[in-house]
Amino acid sequence: MNLTQKIRTALGEEPADLLFENANLVNVLSGEIHPTAMSVRDGVIVGFNKITAKETIDLKGRFLCPGFIDGHLHLESSMLAIPEFAANVAPQGTTAVVADPHEIANVLGLEGIRYIIETAKDAAIRIYIMASSCVPATPFETSGATLNAEDMATFLDEPSVLGLAEVMNYPGVLFQDPDVLAKLRLFKGRVIDGHAPGLSGISLAAYVSAGIGSDHECAYLDEAREKLRLGMKIMIREGSAAKNLETLLPLVNEYNSRNCFFVTDDLEPNDIVERGHIVAIVRKAIRLGLHPIRAIQMAGLNTAQYFGLTTLGALAPGYAADILVLDDLERVTITQVYKAGRLVAENGRFLGLRSPSEAVKPPMSCRVDWDKVKDISVKATGGSIRVIGVVPGQIITESLVEEPKVVDSKIVSDTDRDILKMVVIERHKGTGNVGEGFIKGFGLKEGALASSVAHDSHNIIAVGVTDDDILTAAKEIVAMGGGMTVVRSGEIIARLPLPIAGLMSDQGIDEVRASLHDLSAAAKEMGCSLENPFATLSFMALTPIPKLKLTDLGLFDSEHFRFISLFADA
Amino acid sequence: MNLTQKIRTALGEEPADLLFENANLVNVLSGEIHPTAMSVRDGVIVGFNKITAKETIDLKGRFLCPGFIDGHLHLESSMLAIPEFAANVAPQGTTAVVADPHEIANVLGLEGIRYIIETAKDAAIRIYIMASSCVPATPFETSGATLNAEDMATFLDEPSVLGLAEVMNYPGVLFQDPDVLAKLRLFKGRVIDGHAPGLSGISLAAYVSAGIGSDHECAYLDEAREKLRLGMKIMIREGSAAKNLETLLPLVNEYNSRNCFFVTDDLEPNDIVERGHIVAIVRKAIRLGLHPIRAIQMAGLNTAQYFGLTTLGALAPGYAADILVLDDLERVTITQVYKAGRLVAENGRFLGLRSPSEAVKPPMSCRVDWDKVKDISVKATGGSIRVIGVVPGQIITESLVEEPKVVDSKIVSDTDRDILKMVVIERHKGTGNVGEGFIKGFGLKEGALASSVAHDSHNIIAVGVTDDDILTAAKEIVAMGGGMTVVRSGEIIARLPLPIAGLMSDQGIDEVRASLHDLSAAAKEMGCSLENPFATLSFMALTPIPKLKLTDLGLFDSEHFRFISLFADA
Repeated sequence: MNLTQKIRTALGEEPADLLFENANLVNVLSGEIHPTAMSVRDGVIVGFNKITAKETIDLKGRFLCPGFIDGHLHLESSMLAIPEFAANVAPQGTTAVVADPHEIANVLGLEGIRYIIETAKDAAIRIYIMASSCVPATPFETSGATLNAEDMATFLDEPSVLGLAEVMNYPGVLFQDPDVLAKLRLFKGRVIDGHAPGLSGISLAAYVSAGIGSDHECAYLDEAREKLRLGMKIMIREGSAAKNLETLLPLVNEYNSRNCFFVTDDLEPNDIVERGHIVAIVRKAIRLGLHPIRAIQMAGLNTAQYFGLTTLGALAPGYAADILVLDDLERVTITQVYKAGRLVAENGRFLGLRSPSEAVKPPMSCRVDWDKVKDISVKATGGSIRVIGVVPGQIITESLVEEPKVVDSKIVSDTDRDILKMVVIERHKGTGNVGEGFIKGFGLKEGALASSVAHDSHNIIAVGVTDDDILTAAKEIVAMGGGMTVVRSGEIIARLPLPIAGLMSDQGIDEVRASLHDLSAAAKEMGCSLENPFATLSFMALTPIPKLKLTDLGLFDSEHFRFISLFADA
Repeated sequence: MNLTQKIRTALGEEPADLLFENANLVNVLSGEIHPTAMSVRDGVIVGFNKITAKETIDLKGRFLCPGFIDGHLHLESSMLAIPEFAANVAPQGTTAVVADPHEIANVLGLEGIRYIIETAKDAAIRIYIMASSCVPATPFETSGATLNAEDMATFLDEPSVLGLAEVMNYPGVLFQDPDVLAKLRLFKGRVIDGHAPGLSGISLAAYVSAGIGSDHECAYLDEAREKLRLGMKIMIREGSAAKNLETLLPLVNEYNSRNCFFVTDDLEPNDIVERGHIVAIVRKAIRLGLHPIRAIQMAGLNTAQYFGLTTLGALAPGYAADILVLDDLERVTITQVYKAGRLVAENGRFLGLRSPSEAVKPPMSCRVDWDKVKDISVKATGGSIRVIGVVPGQIITESLVEEPKVVDSKIVSDTDRDILKMVVIERHKGTGNVGEGFIKGFGLKEGALASSVAHDSHNIIAVGVTDDDILTAAKEIVAMGGGMTVVRSGEIIARLPLPIAGLMSDQGIDEVRASLHDLSAAAKEMGCSLENPFATLSFMALTPIPKLKLTDLGLFDSEHFRFISLFADA
């Protein structure tokens, strides 16, 4: 719609595409709910008058509400390709997300981010990208790529890239690491997201002074208050793992709420279906006492304003026609969802395409040279060994010391004491790197589990009772081009292929959930005592989180940030 | 301060310039008032910690508050050169203004706007410019310049130019006038200010759809509510003439206040001194019941956010150190004012320079070819005449019909019935154009008044009892290079030179006020009954305002938008 058409349509001199009549508008700009008509043309709101339109919809008093925006998430956590992700969140009222493709970037670098950008173009929701700032996330494992400032400059002219994604490397900021500062300089004047759990005082002031504008890691009210006072936008997170709404909501008042908005960060497939996306946060916030207008502002308008998305988050002339029709405002029951004026979901049913454009092929991942990875046995060259101690339901671990079980001068799994062998096999460059260690807490009595989802570099991580089953499982991962599997006595008994970077499925969410259920059930059948074995497994290589972790480069002491010997006396 | 210096200073590794201790911060971001320290380096806020600084100021509990911003004004109304304007508003806490140089642009075109931009560079406050959209304001008088879209493109790369100034020509928008649309297209994606008194319904929707984002002309609550609902920012104006705060304040609520802010539009020298600039609106709003935090947000933060001035309107790391020190928050008593970390005013006293840079010379104006303007007599060729009827204190006029007083076949002033001769003499191009008419309501018994301030084209406007005195006064205006004067019996008895475009003085505000007082007193001594004769005179050529006006092109019927004969029966 050009300028003349906009004016002529508003004046009724040319027809609109769509006219809603007898609506109650949740007007987040005037802070009211008021009866009105509303017209749309070419995906843009025209006005609130009853003008000529090709189609008229009588809303009979139902509510019109701007579409919801997720201000920070990692799409990869959904394990879904973008069209399928969109198909599942659009019916829940999400019409835009701001994604940090951190996981795929660590696997596939620029090519991974480019794949997300290309797939996003046809999606049923708007997908904006923040350029991942920390690839690799740490120097302590082999990632698929390294992105320096020069690499990232390629995204400066990309319309869907809004800024620099969460700067997790806050020590790098404080110590003025040249590469970190180069990235901050590159994105100067654009949005730069933060990630600074617990940062405070002069360190926080320095982090904010560097131009970092938001934080989604506030776990405590005082922490969030300090950040808000310093001008950071507070992204209130309700993800699958971290849930901060109830803690942080008391911070929000009538003078500062514009600086707070909702994000999910990481949401697993089951939570997307059973709990819900941004709408779940809106409902919970209203239940906790937030006024619906404020909750809806925090689910879109505030987010859009922070990211400079000037036509999103509200419904008024010139804004995008990303519209929700609500039956009930307090319970936020969504009957219709429009993106750019097009009906994309009705009564929870998605009406768009679930497949990506044929033109966009997922890049290959999972390169392992098995000739270099023949033998994963561990020689018993020392005395007692360090063992990773799983803490159920958490991503931190204990650092234990145990006597090894030795067979034929090799240290092997000891199911009696639940000490299992774990390996991390580098899968990006065919280096043949294998890290070997032992872990307590999985409870497997037989078989092995393996996965290509292992934060942050996503090498192949496997745990099991025998080397044969471990290797069979790992090889199945490579054969699938990435995924998750359970092996018993040499047989694949459950599997979930994740051909997109070894992180995401090309199947529907129902298939993914069924496979996840099968994987979990199979592991439990073999004795695994964990609620969610593959989720736990995925964090066992994450070096920034204490205390003991394993990467393809070896056992890692996350308290003192150094590699450490398997043998406690070494 | 580069990135490394910012980080190092916040960490205390390099000294700040200035540290405020024992302050109470009016934190418009977190919506609180909280005790804190605050440091500044190179004009930018560093943090809230007690770090090393070259100078420390113990505030003993006084308040720190962000500097005030005037979101829309015409500097020319102050009749002061920019340094003198800044010298008078800075001590009142104004640290930035967004100016539409509409008046000087109508006199001097691009050269006038360029003069404002250049003078603004050295000013003690930040002066941002909106490119004047309506030059000339109407086709019904001769202006000094015509600015089309191509001319205005020269300002797109000017850092101090934020967008397109008030689009007063709303009929041009609605009728899709190509020149108006070209200007809107030129500034697409930037801020475009509106001016649409009374516009409503589909016309307003069309105006907003054209990308116009604000309005400062709301005189009624319902009018402002409709505009706010459509997404316009509501500039709540308290100027010398129009005062809308009390009417509009009931609109402001906790969900929409971010979309409202304060402007003055036009403020005369006396009001700047006696009433005050933005601070006066803040005080009045607080008296009317607005919470000080919200009032202060509406005096800066909201304004800055609308204009994309991301480092203004709040005090937090990375924000400009435009700081007010307040003794009392409710009464907003300002003891110190800092701009970019530099103390510019203390206890009401300005500490900076009052003169413009020597390098910036005001361009010349007032070109009249007196050979072409010899005779301003009006022949009595018809019967009764149309007479402009002054409505005291307003800018509208009545359209009266009176019998003329005729002497020697010429129509002359008739002091018995208070019907005086008025002329408008073109002063930009030496055309010799003179518009002649008659006006009732000035009350002069002798002499003449003349002025080069006559909205919107600012030709010379004069009213008087004899042609000789009228011409003497008009010639004195030209001799001064613009200004205001009172003549009695051929003698100049009061004068105010306005050498800057015939609109602004090069003197201090005290001199300007004294001259204005003398002019008014002289006029009253000669019988003038108007409270403010020169203000009234300045609106008598303003064709958009009904009912009867006079321009250099003749008598104008502002109800039917056409020139009209002096003679009622013609």
